[in-house]
Amino acid sequence: MTVPAPLTGVIPPVCTPLTPDREVDVPSLVRLVDHLVAGGVDALFVLGSSSEAAFLTDAQRRTVVETVVGHVGGQLPVLAGVIDMTTPRVLDHVRAVTAAGAEAVVATAPFYTATHPAEISRHYRLLGSRSPVPVLAYDIPSAVHTKLPAEVVLELAADGVIAGLKDSSGDLAGFRTVVTGARDDARVTGFAVLTGSELLVDAALAMGADGAVPGLANVDPAGYVRLHRLCRAGDRDRARAEQERLCALFGMVRTADPHRMGTGSAALGAFKAALHLRGVIACPATADPQVPLSDDEVERVGKFLAAAGLL
Amino acid sequence: MTVPAPLTGVIPPVCTPLTPDREVDVPSLVRLVDHLVAGGVDALFVLGSSSEAAFLTDAQRRTVVETVVGHVGGQLPVLAGVIDMTTPRVLDHVRAVTAAGAEAVVATAPFYTATHPAEISRHYRLLGSRSPVPVLAYDIPSAVHTKLPAEVVLELAADGVIAGLKDSSGDLAGFRTVVTGARDDARVTGFAVLTGSELLVDAALAMGADGAVPGLANVDPAGYVRLHRLCRAGDRDRARAEQERLCALFGMVRTADPHRMGTGSAALGAFKAALHLRGVIACPATADPQVPLSDDEVERVGKFLAAAGLL
Amino acid sequence: MTVPAPLTGVIPPVCTPLTPDREVDVPSLVRLVDHLVAGGVDALFVLGSSSEAAFLTDAQRRTVVETVVGHVGGQLPVLAGVIDMTTPRVLDHVRAVTAAGAEAVVATAPFYTATHPAEISRHYRLLGSRSPVPVLAYDIPSAVHTKLPAEVVLELAADGVIAGLKDSSGDLAGFRTVVTGARDDARVTGFAVLTGSELLVDAALAMGADGAVPGLANVDPAGYVRLHRLCRAGDRDRARAEQERLCALFGMVRTADPHRMGTGSAALGAFKAALHLRGVIACPATADPQVPLSDDEVERVGKFLAAAGLL
Amino acid sequence: MTVPAPLTGVIPPVCTPLTPDREVDVPSLVRLVDHLVAGGVDALFVLGSSSEAAFLTDAQRRTVVETVVGHVGGQLPVLAGVIDMTTPRVLDHVRAVTAAGAEAVVATAPFYTATHPAEISRHYRLLGSRSPVPVLAYDIPSAVHTKLPAEVVLELAADGVIAGLKDSSGDLAGFRTVVTGARDDARVTGFAVLTGSELLVDAALAMGADGAVPGLANVDPAGYVRLHRLCRAGDRDRARAEQERLCALFGMVRTADPHRMGTGSAALGAFKAALHLRGVIACPATADPQVPLSDDEVERVGKFLAAAGLL
Repeated sequence: MTVPAPLTGVIPPVCTPLTPDREVDVPSLVRLVDHLVAGGVDALFVLGSSSEAAFLTDAQRRTVVETVVGHVGGQLPVLAGVIDMTTPRVLDHVRAVTAAGAEAVVATAPFYTATHPAEISRHYRLLGSRSPVPVLAYDIPSAVHTKLPAEVVLELAADGVIAGLKDSSGDLAGFRTVVTGARDDARVTGFAVLTGSELLVDAALAMGADGAVPGLANVDPAGYVRLHRLCRAGDRDRARAEQERLCALFGMVRTADPHRMGTGSAALGAFKAALHLRGVIACPATADPQVPLSDDEVERVGKFLAAAGLL
Repeated sequence: MTVPAPLTGVIPPVCTPLTPDREVDVPSLVRLVDHLVAGGVDALFVLGSSSEAAFLTDAQRRTVVETVVGHVGGQLPVLAGVIDMTTPRVLDHVRAVTAAGAEAVVATAPFYTATHPAEISRHYRLLGSRSPVPVLAYDIPSAVHTKLPAEVVLELAADGVIAGLKDSSGDLAGFRTVVTGARDDARVTGFAVLTGSELLVDAALAMGADGAVPGLANVDPAGYVRLHRLCRAGDRDRARAEQERLCALFGMVRTADPHRMGTGSAALGAFKAALHLRGVIACPATADPQVPLSDDEVERVGKFLAAAGLL
Repeated sequence: MTVPAPLTGVIPPVCTPLTPDREVDVPSLVRLVDHLVAGGVDALFVLGSSSEAAFLTDAQRRTVVETVVGHVGGQLPVLAGVIDMTTPRVLDHVRAVTAAGAEAVVATAPFYTATHPAEISRHYRLLGSRSPVPVLAYDIPSAVHTKLPAEVVLELAADGVIAGLKDSSGDLAGFRTVVTGARDDARVTGFAVLTGSELLVDAALAMGADGAVPGLANVDPAGYVRLHRLCRAGDRDRARAEQERLCALFGMVRTADPHRMGTGSAALGAFKAALHLRGVIACPATADPQVPLSDDEVERVGKFLAAAGLL
Repeated sequence: MTVPAPLTGVIPPVCTPLTPDREVDVPSLVRLVDHLVAGGVDALFVLGSSSEAAFLTDAQRRTVVETVVGHVGGQLPVLAGVIDMTTPRVLDHVRAVTAAGAEAVVATAPFYTATHPAEISRHYRLLGSRSPVPVLAYDIPSAVHTKLPAEVVLELAADGVIAGLKDSSGDLAGFRTVVTGARDDARVTGFAVLTGSELLVDAALAMGADGAVPGLANVDPAGYVRLHRLCRAGDRDRARAEQERLCALFGMVRTADPHRMGTGSAALGAFKAALHLRGVIACPATADPQVPLSDDEVERVGKFLAAAGLL
């Protein structure tokens, strides 16, 4: 299937369930996809940051794309992350994920290397010219340590180089610049502006965003789908209440002791613990070298689920 | 051949010459290796940051290791970088480069993901337990956005997990803590403390460092070898003069217009322009998406070479 | 007069007009206050970042507070910034501004010194116990290089230490945590959660914020007052349109050449140029060592005013 | 007395002893000055970062300068910090400290405000043209969050605007650029390049630095004076041993629990605890809002003193 232009709605970055020995747990991945589809999501994004793409080997990445594309069988569009340091390496991932059936790719700015906006722009232009499927830009300064400037994104959109933006920067003012800039520029068509925030979906949609890519939608896809519908229906009060319920649920990412692990381990560990507690995946393991949650920490994740009506 | 313990002397991070269409230029790489060996260097480090490892595909990385290992034929130890985001991906590179003949691997802290010292430590312990060759830690906060804490390095050294440190942090005080800590701990044996700075080799050796891994040694290997010998001989005044000549030569990394490209493009572009001007490599191209130096900028690189007596 | 609890509505951080020789231009300051009052604002905040408090001497700060307090004569509450590095120095400013009539003080986290959350908390507790007027916390990481953690703010609010938060962090997700946390905690009463963003006032109010402190309200107070009223009335579509008009107007802060001056000079220079073009202040000078806007840049500021219907 | 040009040798940034109720403890300050003079230091730097200048009120700063200048009575040059956010406020401090007898002033780049190199340069030019005594530049990015670019420093030196640099950046490569650049430029005369590092004094002097301004010299002035003499005498081995003894002693700054206080509180608390244990000052209190060391932590500071032969 082809990706709609623009892409809209709720598009979870699909977690990657692992076995206790850290291989892709294919049956759990299939169950997770079913759980997301049953929740009513609009598309699936595999190999994103919440998917632990940074931790998966190339072979594991291929398994993930093939499994998900094969299982959804064209019911929903499947986007795939192509997370790597620079253009030549990203292009190898573009080849691999499109061979495995991905219908769009999602690429960050270059990282590891010191980058200039002119190089970010060149990076996307090279990807755009060589990718057989649409390219979305992924703005995630916490990971790549550069912010995609709004003017670079808008120029790439106007030139038809990129088909959308996933903004995980936390900078809603910059996001708004892209939303209104894309809307007001006649050269920009079919461009999707998507927030990666779990906590500001109502605000982003009120500004004119096309959709959301929240990691927490793994745990509660139906909640985010409901939130999206309430926002579209203009029912702001119930939308705000639903968003606040999801904000409270997101508190699970802070259950782990920050003196013992990084914020990544804490958040991904909590999402996977929640999926395990909800019976979706067989094992809550996260990839190496992440530190696992303790039993106490998992128990507190369970309390967040219970408080949100999910257990 | 096995890597000496500790590794000492001048160990250039070997640039990766590219053809105009951005493939590895094998004949130029061979000539560059000959140029370095003729300069008197003690070992070779391929697939480091100055080698543009972040830009090379897996196939290109393999070509580089095979070419260099094959060409030196055991005359010198060959270390290879295994630069990737996390443990599972780095382990794939360990397998690849050791299959291609690398005699030690050099690994950074995890990046892209938010990392905690406990996870950095786990990362190296997993690498150490699974690598068939010695593992050196590579401290490069400008690229990975975490600093390897001296106490983590010393603990890993004491436990025999790592065989050395390449410090490209610019933090000479932290470097000194590792030098003296390693020297004064009886559990640490054969551990190499290497500076990655072009500009502070004399100071690092005076503190007790074992060697240096300066990117600029591609351009002037004989200069760094001479500097190393003067330092070892205790001839501080001539060592300082040689170091200052090399500091002046290093000014070439600032020839490019900082409003037009990043500092990485500027530095790697200058090194390759210099190697091209010196007749060592056939083409000064850097990998995508880096911005190339202009003709004017290349001309200014030539002036740095002339001033240092290298043209 | 006493400050309402909570403080609500539009509270501009009042610019400090200067004479060509960089003294406080008292007649222009009085005219600016009249312009803001005529625009319908709810309170005035002097000696904030947009007021160039960081550039004003103690004598100039005193002149500003005395002038504004004297001129408004109790019509509106006057809050004053007490921006300095640490508790003892801030307490000196608290004494000075309250002696001059300020009815509340606004204090940042400590800066210059390396700060820990425990020290931030101590700082506000010491200020709270010694200030004769309410203390508001001012979260401005771009200036002080620490973020006020939401949990520290909520704990200080629950203990009655602070009477409000001015959030200039750009982190709307963290802001939301404070808004809902303060609302849901019975111990918190009369606490004002105010956004310092020019660009997200509608979103902040929709989340439950009490008001806004936008620097751009100097230029267009009536616009922000209208925006606030539309938001309170639940007229989301017209609120969004008004907010977008103000976002476009805010583009004036990017007229200056970023290779020639910092973003602070560019923004404050644009605000003052706009106030000068609108006939409110006599001279657009900014304090030393800021670089002034060029004639061309001022002309472009005028185009922003014209486009927003303000000339 | 006038400040020598260039200033050379060991110039401790003098701690500011406080009473239990956080007033300047004048008798202890006098004893500390005697302790430093007896140790053989070459000049005194009051109101620096290690002096807690950021925490002292204007009245306390005046007390400090008057006390020290009055007590040394011209035996040694007294430099004073003029630490504040921007040019107008710094100029007020210049007036105050020179009225109190300071013979040179030491000024950082602007902070709190977003700064551009052109503004840093303007800042020093304005200070230089209005200060009655020589101005030294103070490079301390950890506090002010900008690095003084070497080319700006050298240009200011060549134009006679500044009389020296105190470099607390930790960037010894940048420091070297200033050392050699100043030496090789005939327009630069009498310019002092001083390191602010406790840990790299031998390396800095070997590069050609004029002197050092180490905070730890409060605790062991004789050690730093001995180190300086050994370096000047070219006795590199004994210099290195002395430097390593001082590096070990500096470990005291890490005795405090980093989960309980910031690195500033930990370091200044340790210096003052050491001065108290050595009998120099009456009370180890640090200024608000810093967290004090626990009894256990003080005991561990004592062990560092004992190990260094100072108890």
